[in-house]
Amino acid sequence: MKAAIIGGTGYGSIELVRLLNKHPYMEVGSVVSNSQAGISFSDVYPHLSNIIVQPLETFNADRLSEENDIVFFATPSGVSSKLVPKMIEKGKKCIDLSGDFRLRNAEEYESWYKHSPADGKYLKQAIYGLSEIYSEEIKTASLLANPGCYPTATTLGLIPIVKKGFVDEKSIIIDAKSGVTGAGRGLTLTSHYAEINDNVRAYKLGAHQHIPEIEQVLQDETGKEIAITFSTHLVPMSRGIMCSMYMNLKDYISTEDVIEIYNQFYEKHPFVRVRPVGNVPTTKEVLGSNYCDIGLHVDPRTNRLTVISVIDNLVKGAAGQAIQNANIMNGWDERTGLTDIPLYP
Amino acid sequence: MKAAIIGGTGYGSIELVRLLNKHPYMEVGSVVSNSQAGISFSDVYPHLSNIIVQPLETFNADRLSEENDIVFFATPSGVSSKLVPKMIEKGKKCIDLSGDFRLRNAEEYESWYKHSPADGKYLKQAIYGLSEIYSEEIKTASLLANPGCYPTATTLGLIPIVKKGFVDEKSIIIDAKSGVTGAGRGLTLTSHYAEINDNVRAYKLGAHQHIPEIEQVLQDETGKEIAITFSTHLVPMSRGIMCSMYMNLKDYISTEDVIEIYNQFYEKHPFVRVRPVGNVPTTKEVLGSNYCDIGLHVDPRTNRLTVISVIDNLVKGAAGQAIQNANIMNGWDERTGLTDIPLYP
Amino acid sequence: MKAAIIGGTGYGSIELVRLLNKHPYMEVGSVVSNSQAGISFSDVYPHLSNIIVQPLETFNADRLSEENDIVFFATPSGVSSKLVPKMIEKGKKCIDLSGDFRLRNAEEYESWYKHSPADGKYLKQAIYGLSEIYSEEIKTASLLANPGCYPTATTLGLIPIVKKGFVDEKSIIIDAKSGVTGAGRGLTLTSHYAEINDNVRAYKLGAHQHIPEIEQVLQDETGKEIAITFSTHLVPMSRGIMCSMYMNLKDYISTEDVIEIYNQFYEKHPFVRVRPVGNVPTTKEVLGSNYCDIGLHVDPRTNRLTVISVIDNLVKGAAGQAIQNANIMNGWDERTGLTDIPLYP
Amino acid sequence: MKAAIIGGTGYGSIELVRLLNKHPYMEVGSVVSNSQAGISFSDVYPHLSNIIVQPLETFNADRLSEENDIVFFATPSGVSSKLVPKMIEKGKKCIDLSGDFRLRNAEEYESWYKHSPADGKYLKQAIYGLSEIYSEEIKTASLLANPGCYPTATTLGLIPIVKKGFVDEKSIIIDAKSGVTGAGRGLTLTSHYAEINDNVRAYKLGAHQHIPEIEQVLQDETGKEIAITFSTHLVPMSRGIMCSMYMNLKDYISTEDVIEIYNQFYEKHPFVRVRPVGNVPTTKEVLGSNYCDIGLHVDPRTNRLTVISVIDNLVKGAAGQAIQNANIMNGWDERTGLTDIPLYP
Repeated sequence: MKAAIIGGTGYGSIELVRLLNKHPYMEVGSVVSNSQAGISFSDVYPHLSNIIVQPLETFNADRLSEENDIVFFATPSGVSSKLVPKMIEKGKKCIDLSGDFRLRNAEEYESWYKHSPADGKYLKQAIYGLSEIYSEEIKTASLLANPGCYPTATTLGLIPIVKKGFVDEKSIIIDAKSGVTGAGRGLTLTSHYAEINDNVRAYKLGAHQHIPEIEQVLQDETGKEIAITFSTHLVPMSRGIMCSMYMNLKDYISTEDVIEIYNQFYEKHPFVRVRPVGNVPTTKEVLGSNYCDIGLHVDPRTNRLTVISVIDNLVKGAAGQAIQNANIMNGWDERTGLTDIPLYP
Repeated sequence: MKAAIIGGTGYGSIELVRLLNKHPYMEVGSVVSNSQAGISFSDVYPHLSNIIVQPLETFNADRLSEENDIVFFATPSGVSSKLVPKMIEKGKKCIDLSGDFRLRNAEEYESWYKHSPADGKYLKQAIYGLSEIYSEEIKTASLLANPGCYPTATTLGLIPIVKKGFVDEKSIIIDAKSGVTGAGRGLTLTSHYAEINDNVRAYKLGAHQHIPEIEQVLQDETGKEIAITFSTHLVPMSRGIMCSMYMNLKDYISTEDVIEIYNQFYEKHPFVRVRPVGNVPTTKEVLGSNYCDIGLHVDPRTNRLTVISVIDNLVKGAAGQAIQNANIMNGWDERTGLTDIPLYP
Repeated sequence: MKAAIIGGTGYGSIELVRLLNKHPYMEVGSVVSNSQAGISFSDVYPHLSNIIVQPLETFNADRLSEENDIVFFATPSGVSSKLVPKMIEKGKKCIDLSGDFRLRNAEEYESWYKHSPADGKYLKQAIYGLSEIYSEEIKTASLLANPGCYPTATTLGLIPIVKKGFVDEKSIIIDAKSGVTGAGRGLTLTSHYAEINDNVRAYKLGAHQHIPEIEQVLQDETGKEIAITFSTHLVPMSRGIMCSMYMNLKDYISTEDVIEIYNQFYEKHPFVRVRPVGNVPTTKEVLGSNYCDIGLHVDPRTNRLTVISVIDNLVKGAAGQAIQNANIMNGWDERTGLTDIPLYP
Repeated sequence: MKAAIIGGTGYGSIELVRLLNKHPYMEVGSVVSNSQAGISFSDVYPHLSNIIVQPLETFNADRLSEENDIVFFATPSGVSSKLVPKMIEKGKKCIDLSGDFRLRNAEEYESWYKHSPADGKYLKQAIYGLSEIYSEEIKTASLLANPGCYPTATTLGLIPIVKKGFVDEKSIIIDAKSGVTGAGRGLTLTSHYAEINDNVRAYKLGAHQHIPEIEQVLQDETGKEIAITFSTHLVPMSRGIMCSMYMNLKDYISTEDVIEIYNQFYEKHPFVRVRPVGNVPTTKEVLGSNYCDIGLHVDPRTNRLTVISVIDNLVKGAAGQAIQNANIMNGWDERTGLTDIPLYP
């Protein structure tokens, strides 16, 4: 099966290339970059010189649909909302790694993203691809909205306990720490090495566009309106997200019991690994892999639960979950091509 | 005035050396290291070769008191509780950078530090040296307990609003991020470069020995029992602490008004700098300096206040605040020798 | 085929685990760690919790030979010289990642390594496993001395031009830069995060134990006595080696022609990739992969050739080349299990 | 004395601000940034909020000369050649941190910098400000060309032995490693955090514009034409340069004797510190300071000398040496305002 990648030479694209290269049933067909069409992919990334030989193409729905079976969009927000419909019309399955089809509410999209939203017809059709939670819906999806990196780490860490109704929903606070690739390869002062190195930076306090996405998932899972506090921090690393999440328990539950709840919830989900008592994951322990590792701690002094959830933002937070979703959509084992051990250290 | 440094060749010691070197009224007299006595300080730190020429000494109360006017202890916990009394008896002013004299409650010390506490007589005598808050008491102190790095960043960020009574005291959550020097120069797997680099690690969840210190200060300032949630994270940088603090406001206050409260509170305190609306500090913006920079944000969606407080853990969180306290104890301007601009970038 | 790993929980071991996990014909049988026997591998490395379930074992030649088909030694120098013979006697193929069997001259080993050398009988039997150069000998090896990380990057970068006789052999200078994993997981001040971060450190000038190994290979390839200048530097990164190598050309050759010589030399060697004119590799461009990328530049002002050679020290410089050698020894395609794209960025 | 800084908000400018802030005889008068005129300096650098309150100005020779006594140019190449003459005409002493007045040969400037050179009249007038070597000339300079960062580290490390005539001048090879601030605050892919972090990159092999500057100094000191090999590498750190330099000795000299030559040469130069046998400096050991530390090693196997020279590129390699030169030009002790201990770690 041939896969087209729309989105040129960003980090999302090369991560898709890296993962498709080891997938037994899919391979890279076309790579589209309107701004760099004609030049070779390996001119931009010399480390791919012997691997990706085809040149970058412009977006051409006819040619793309002839030469490919599935289409991954790794485009900036506001792009795939325009391009996805053209491929859907050609009958191609589309997996969108951007935020364009994640929010069902078009107005909310516009207010957080400051772009025009996608056409409501496609918004309705889009399936939100949090693989562990919506696998049934994903099986038949033709347009898949791949979750954001922060929402993936956050919701996988919250759902098991929040869904049980054990948590005061108003008390949820998420302190997220991300590596720099989360912001892509674009050049800004906040990606300049000397500004990031040996530094920690809080940004977009209460204003991150992933907030409505997280709240939509929590609302879907609980049936309640939930407003979270969500703070993002840039830390000096290339990849990785850690979400440290704090919430009040309605009644006291021990750490052991909380772990048991999570273990049961994720029993059949190999990519979510729950740590035993006293053990919390570091971001590097999932580097390059599709795992989401979760550590849990209840503080009896305050009856507050702390959840530590980590992912590689480019894998489980982007390209890896996209492949996982493609596996589910095609009826393959969801682990296909994704069983690599994290690169440690 | 001659200053003795007890604590050998740790990072606290060399930071004291660095700061004393530019102080107009104090200079390094003796440097004590029982384990490395006899060898030259610059054999351990070649970058001090032309600056500190005296050899490391063993601890000898008589000789130290003859040759020095003030004594700084930068020793591991459990050491200064034994040594400080000997210097106090000699009539020397002592500034202890360890945790040995910070907690008034000896039992609490023992339960969090797993050591025997200091003699109650000295615990009573010790003044807690959070310079901006206790300057009156510090003026006459002979035994000064210099605050921990986390408690400094935390309490300076909390006191202005908590003391006003505007905060639900049960709701306070502190997510702290620290560089590696916070753990000293000792060799452990969690200071190994390859385990830290490109990684974020949560540790001591709900179990950090700075918790009772923070709560003691908050209780002193409010008269209320306060139990906080305090989570510490190791991030890949050498120096710096950021405390991201979350708390529910009893009534809505705008970000502007909160900033005004902080500005008034710290009006006469040059080392605490409050950022304007929309501006939060990064850790590097205080690197090598004695500043504590504070950013503030109220989220109207949740009526929750976020406080971002940053310090250099080795300066305002240790040696710098110790010098500041020595300045106050000696009746000098508290800024003496501490006016350096942060090293950026 | 079952593979035993001797050498416990060092970085070499877990890299073998990572690579064996994706190998189609080999899998991890036993993992031996005398110091940590009995505990679970994933207690040391939680990121392997669902992958390696067997406990760490003590070294027992009988049991190991019953349960495994091939043995990898990732032990500190001086260990495998004692253990390898026991497994050879059992008829098992042994691949030693340490330096114990690399130098044919036992006295030279002793003078550089400060240990007793291996038994001469086994030294004679050992095949030096620089895969691209000695594949014929490797095919029939039963005891394989896997090259050091620096010698791999260095000799692959030097042999094509030096063997041609185009280089003044007395002029070869190698300035090597390595990440910290090259020194293993042991705790020393030079692996302490705060001593390495934001720092560059030269070490073992003219005294690195890889010098005689490099010279032995160059002598074998040219028939001449060659004394090199070899300087090693620690740079703040986890993995990766760059060797910048300088040498005088006997007669002027253009950069293009040098590149052509290298391209021809490595035509049938997929893991060595020669860059085109004006393009030199960075270490991250081979991260996690078995590639050695080489860039070349002739300065017409000085008629001096600069060779930039990069590898991942834990892959092509250790575990990856060990797998590559196991592939050759077993008659499989040398690329088996090693075709991953580098993890970038 | 008031100092004007021309060059806006680059790293050179804020380093001048940082150092002038602690200078007893000079203070910041005006800061000029044509592109950002009108906005406050601390809007760009919040860490200077309480320190630099004046707004950024446009370049106006009349006003600048009225309000300032000395002018520092921290502008990109090609700018100061146009602006310096206007301030010289006003009778102001000018110190140029760019490359515009360093090369006496205008054609050479044009061929390496790809800009028009400065007017020959001013090129003749300019004094090259390598403080330790040209202090006599600097005393009376009115137009000072402050050396580049690489040339400073390189020439201070080479001159003592090369000037003696002990070195084969054709054999000099310089392998330089630099932090990222060397390239300024501009946004390029090679300053993007994720491209630099955990990576080493060689660049501008044999093509760096500092080559003719180094050769000019060596020629001045020896009277011989010298062509060097000079390779630059970007390493993942913010500040710091290490030059590892290799050269053949005409006759054997011991490491001890070489060190003695250097110690004598720099006896009266407090900012150059020569390390004892077996001790080579790391870049962090001079961080934030004006020191140049030098380590020396002769390899008896090859009769080759290795010199390791380190500086902070923003201090001794830029703003610090500029202050040092201003001190000399004004007849003050060259150490004035520059005696800080390096910030370690």
